[in-house]
Amino acid sequence: MRAFIVLGHKAPTSPEFTLNDLPGAAGRLDVLCRCVNASLFLSHDLRRDVEVHLVLRDQLTVRISGTHVKRLNPDERSTAALVKKALRRIASHDGPDELESTPGVWIARRTLAEALASLQRRGATPVLLSEGSEPLAGATLPPWPAFVLSDHLDFEPGKLAQLEGLQRLSVGPRVYPASHCIAALNIELDRRGG
Amino acid sequence: MRAFIVLGHKAPTSPEFTLNDLPGAAGRLDVLCRCVNASLFLSHDLRRDVEVHLVLRDQLTVRISGTHVKRLNPDERSTAALVKKALRRIASHDGPDELESTPGVWIARRTLAEALASLQRRGATPVLLSEGSEPLAGATLPPWPAFVLSDHLDFEPGKLAQLEGLQRLSVGPRVYPASHCIAALNIELDRRGG
Repeated sequence: MRAFIVLGHKAPTSPEFTLNDLPGAAGRLDVLCRCVNASLFLSHDLRRDVEVHLVLRDQLTVRISGTHVKRLNPDERSTAALVKKALRRIASHDGPDELESTPGVWIARRTLAEALASLQRRGATPVLLSEGSEPLAGATLPPWPAFVLSDHLDFEPGKLAQLEGLQRLSVGPRVYPASHCIAALNIELDRRGG
Repeated sequence: MRAFIVLGHKAPTSPEFTLNDLPGAAGRLDVLCRCVNASLFLSHDLRRDVEVHLVLRDQLTVRISGTHVKRLNPDERSTAALVKKALRRIASHDGPDELESTPGVWIARRTLAEALASLQRRGATPVLLSEGSEPLAGATLPPWPAFVLSDHLDFEPGKLAQLEGLQRLSVGPRVYPASHCIAALNIELDRRGG
């Protein structure tokens, strides 16, 4: 198994956004949708051993499982529509449970720390993607990694303090969009037979 | 310099398509838009030494130059809107010239072979992305590579015959969406200092 967790700093937490303006009115939801694509798609196939967690404003987490998901398409708009359905599902629900909104898509009132803790309980080891840190090429990776990334904005200092002590990796010498990092990580893990 | 050339088998060649259905009515234009993103974007920056050519149904080629482009955003919809403007620009023009539709975006009545020839005249060496061929990791690359990719459909046998004799590369052991290959190639070339 492997997982990708992406924090969307400005992402919507209610379903009242238009699919016609993902970068603006929907708080750069386009960035998160491309991360879903990079996490789960092969050419004409899905990565069944991968899941992706979209953490919306550190309040809600949408989890999409490659094992279970149905009706997932590669484009940004249809992926945003699945997020919208998930937000509609949880709108009237206050409890801590994870609710399935469409097959293989769950949503819960979960922060980044809580989403990470849930993955660790399942055996995952978090790894933080961070520019200028250890290069991916030579790095030893845990057998069941959960890669932590931020959207177009950097993690705030308080958030970074929570992530202190995690293994840190960079995929290359420049600063890349999260979805590019995910594509590179998936391909590198494939090469290693992970 | 480096370039990416992507053939869109079902892509639109007239501007009469809706931005609300890029995968369907617009013939998987979403795939090509993600290729533009993977080719040209860094985090909060553009790759000024890269250009991307979108070959629409082997009839028209939209060329976007990282050196010159303005008003390019990372999301699929706004990139598709630039392609639509390019198609509008060329609609009433029959000649072979390349027309600039918006800053840094050109369109011409050019096939894949013609787009490749124009790059070769400028000093580029074409490299074909092809599953199961030489792994990228150990491969020697030309100093000014022009990577040739297909969208969600494979190259047809006649087209492959035209591409016979080119260096062939694969980015990993599975079959990847074109945009994932481009992200991996860009990062690998960055690592090599290319």
